[in-house]
Amino acid sequence: MPIRNIAIGRPEEATHPDTLKAGLAEFISTLIFVFAGSGSSIAYNKLTNDGAATPAGLIAAAVAHAFALFVAVSVGANISGGHVNPAVTFGAFVGGNITFLRGIVYIIAQLLGSIVAALLLKFVTASTVPAFALSSGVGVGEALVLEIVMTFGLVYTVYATAVDPKKGSLGTIAPIAIGFIVGANILVGGAFDGASMNPAVSFGPAVVSWSWSNHWIYWVGPLIGGGIAGVIYEVLFISHTHEQLPTTDY
Amino acid sequence: MPIRNIAIGRPEEATHPDTLKAGLAEFISTLIFVFAGSGSSIAYNKLTNDGAATPAGLIAAAVAHAFALFVAVSVGANISGGHVNPAVTFGAFVGGNITFLRGIVYIIAQLLGSIVAALLLKFVTASTVPAFALSSGVGVGEALVLEIVMTFGLVYTVYATAVDPKKGSLGTIAPIAIGFIVGANILVGGAFDGASMNPAVSFGPAVVSWSWSNHWIYWVGPLIGGGIAGVIYEVLFISHTHEQLPTTDY
Amino acid sequence: MPIRNIAIGRPEEATHPDTLKAGLAEFISTLIFVFAGSGSSIAYNKLTNDGAATPAGLIAAAVAHAFALFVAVSVGANISGGHVNPAVTFGAFVGGNITFLRGIVYIIAQLLGSIVAALLLKFVTASTVPAFALSSGVGVGEALVLEIVMTFGLVYTVYATAVDPKKGSLGTIAPIAIGFIVGANILVGGAFDGASMNPAVSFGPAVVSWSWSNHWIYWVGPLIGGGIAGVIYEVLFISHTHEQLPTTDY
Amino acid sequence: MPIRNIAIGRPEEATHPDTLKAGLAEFISTLIFVFAGSGSSIAYNKLTNDGAATPAGLIAAAVAHAFALFVAVSVGANISGGHVNPAVTFGAFVGGNITFLRGIVYIIAQLLGSIVAALLLKFVTASTVPAFALSSGVGVGEALVLEIVMTFGLVYTVYATAVDPKKGSLGTIAPIAIGFIVGANILVGGAFDGASMNPAVSFGPAVVSWSWSNHWIYWVGPLIGGGIAGVIYEVLFISHTHEQLPTTDY
Repeated sequence: MPIRNIAIGRPEEATHPDTLKAGLAEFISTLIFVFAGSGSSIAYNKLTNDGAATPAGLIAAAVAHAFALFVAVSVGANISGGHVNPAVTFGAFVGGNITFLRGIVYIIAQLLGSIVAALLLKFVTASTVPAFALSSGVGVGEALVLEIVMTFGLVYTVYATAVDPKKGSLGTIAPIAIGFIVGANILVGGAFDGASMNPAVSFGPAVVSWSWSNHWIYWVGPLIGGGIAGVIYEVLFISHTHEQLPTTDY
Repeated sequence: MPIRNIAIGRPEEATHPDTLKAGLAEFISTLIFVFAGSGSSIAYNKLTNDGAATPAGLIAAAVAHAFALFVAVSVGANISGGHVNPAVTFGAFVGGNITFLRGIVYIIAQLLGSIVAALLLKFVTASTVPAFALSSGVGVGEALVLEIVMTFGLVYTVYATAVDPKKGSLGTIAPIAIGFIVGANILVGGAFDGASMNPAVSFGPAVVSWSWSNHWIYWVGPLIGGGIAGVIYEVLFISHTHEQLPTTDY
Repeated sequence: MPIRNIAIGRPEEATHPDTLKAGLAEFISTLIFVFAGSGSSIAYNKLTNDGAATPAGLIAAAVAHAFALFVAVSVGANISGGHVNPAVTFGAFVGGNITFLRGIVYIIAQLLGSIVAALLLKFVTASTVPAFALSSGVGVGEALVLEIVMTFGLVYTVYATAVDPKKGSLGTIAPIAIGFIVGANILVGGAFDGASMNPAVSFGPAVVSWSWSNHWIYWVGPLIGGGIAGVIYEVLFISHTHEQLPTTDY
Repeated sequence: MPIRNIAIGRPEEATHPDTLKAGLAEFISTLIFVFAGSGSSIAYNKLTNDGAATPAGLIAAAVAHAFALFVAVSVGANISGGHVNPAVTFGAFVGGNITFLRGIVYIIAQLLGSIVAALLLKFVTASTVPAFALSSGVGVGEALVLEIVMTFGLVYTVYATAVDPKKGSLGTIAPIAIGFIVGANILVGGAFDGASMNPAVSFGPAVVSWSWSNHWIYWVGPLIGGGIAGVIYEVLFISHTHEQLPTTDY
């Protein structure tokens, strides 16, 4: 079961104008996404005087993230591919769809975009930006598995709708699918660990609020989940198609 | 009024690599869908300390199911057709669009996906996974008809937007339509019987919580509704088109 | 400013198999739509013990209608055009896009679909089906103008995204746009007069609950609004294009 | 780094039938959008007896604006380009995609559409139409930066999905993306300054309620944010593509 070459990339690639432009697109997309996502939490806290999370608050967070990620992926799609997430970039790397150097540029850009979004939010709302954290009673093991499962679903969606050469007309609605799986998962995981599925999303608020408790979960979980999704999809559903098996009927 | 041949399939088909791959895709799609759907109920219970269902809780469930089913159908579309539901597979079989053996593989995969999702939810949330049940005061007859009507709408939507050869550009948004009709119906039926429309969705939580009270309703209702939709659409709207009637104007 | 011929249609057209099939499609689409729309109100009443309307209840109604109308238009699109609304059929007639006899068949089918949906809801929920009515303090004049303005927006949307020969790729997302303008308008008008925009939607619940107070508003308002939209769009934006004016840049 | 010519337009352009028709389309689109957007706020106030804003109220506003702007952009797309917003028109002008005179016609039409929508709302709801204002404790500087950032995201989305010649199939879902970024941003900014991102949206209610406190923020912020987005996208992502750089891989 051959998988495509994992390329390292030539050293000059990282400073190629095209790579830098793609990095800028990732920066802006992640800024737009984190501004809406973390900002909706701050707005909730303002409206409820930091009251406990409620179903309405979770719906607001889910809708804000679903809508904003859909847009962030869309606006980056034709320039950088619209990763907006180190776990997606890592999954693309593991599946052989991006070089190592270009991937590093993407991830740095995503982290910077998240930091700038958090700083802007801190200024415009005159509030603290809440860092991701485990809810009361949630253990580290549970949160780690939760992030793995949810991010697996997200990166599997990216592969099936945007990377797979067989995607066909699904490609048109891929950004919506990518945004909405995050929205759906927030309605599950938001009450337990904040439902990040994205190290960049957790990183900016952690930097600005300088709170790093359990922060590693939001890196390790998504990278494992995204990596597994990239390998499974590439090996089982993309590579095999080169062998000309009969296509499935509906 | 001829309907297309209902194929049994050759025995070796069930173990053909392509059929197994399609089964794996159904497994993963159903896992993603049930994880978000049942998970949103667990999150609601956590946030409200198992308080009574409210409109906000129903909206959260509707959005989680609509978004997640849209994604689950999308990610499976090009590999297995994205059934994610034994009632859809049964409707496809009744309409002559899938063989018996392949259909069995699909349904087993869907049931396994639902069980694994429920087990994962039990672990990550450290909670019980709620089984589908009739609300207080709802009779068996009412719930059965409710599941029939709602699943009829769902499988009719699958036929009109994804199976019908005349579907045209509707095919692009078919996964959204399929997800959203389930979301809309949950806003109706969720308050009465949980609004399953899908035996796999009810089966996993029933296994993990080992509660089987009225469980048959969530099989009989959807299979009847899905079967009727498959026959009606195939006979009235697909078969007839072979006879070259004038197409409808707008 | 010539507008296209308003055709009466040959008498045999009303019983032509194709017309009947289109009528059946309108019947099923309207049934699906009204089942979800009116059903969500019944579910709200059940969950809140008939409490006063709240923003959460309005959101639930808006989402149920938006999602279900999107689906109802989609599943009918290739068979009947997916009108699902006498005001849309009337707007299409006024603009010269459907014959009189075919229009009558559509409207009868829509009304029957709504009645059957209301009867099914009455059975499965063991509840009364609430008829549309003016909220306390809302006058007849206000409600009439409200229905005119909202239905104008709906039928204008139908024309721009589904009827206009220049629609291009907008046609792909037309059913979503048609569903979502109704959802948006419910968030405005729902608190004042129920926000029908559709005589069929009001008719079924009125028949089953036999309450006809101010029912005429839900016919006169939508037919005026839909008729105006049909004439304006046809005259200003479709007919003129035959004269080869330069097309607009973005 | 050359940017495309900023055209002034010939004087006769402003009265050209095609320009007037585009202006009429902008008028109707803005009317539909503001009617749903401001109307949802009035409905919220009615249902809660002018109670304090809550997460549910913010969700209702976000959904109403997202759905209605999606539709307003769609219905105008093929006639005027579907700007529905002076900040979008200004961003298009700065990027060289619309002439000065045509832009003036668009903005006047948008302002008139907003005023008529506010007048209709005042009549049908028999209520005052709330003007945009800063929430308690929000400073002018914060609100200005908030409007700049949010409108930057909006106009950047317009450029990436609708103006960019590389947009490809993204163009099909552009109106959804444009509507949804506004919905997401309302979940952030709605609690602080109402989240306008659109001078026309603020202008109509200000005229009808005749309240102009801090009104300039809703002009200056969006025009700065939209202008920056237009220049950045045009210079970095459109102009450079003329130089035949290698296109990005996924």
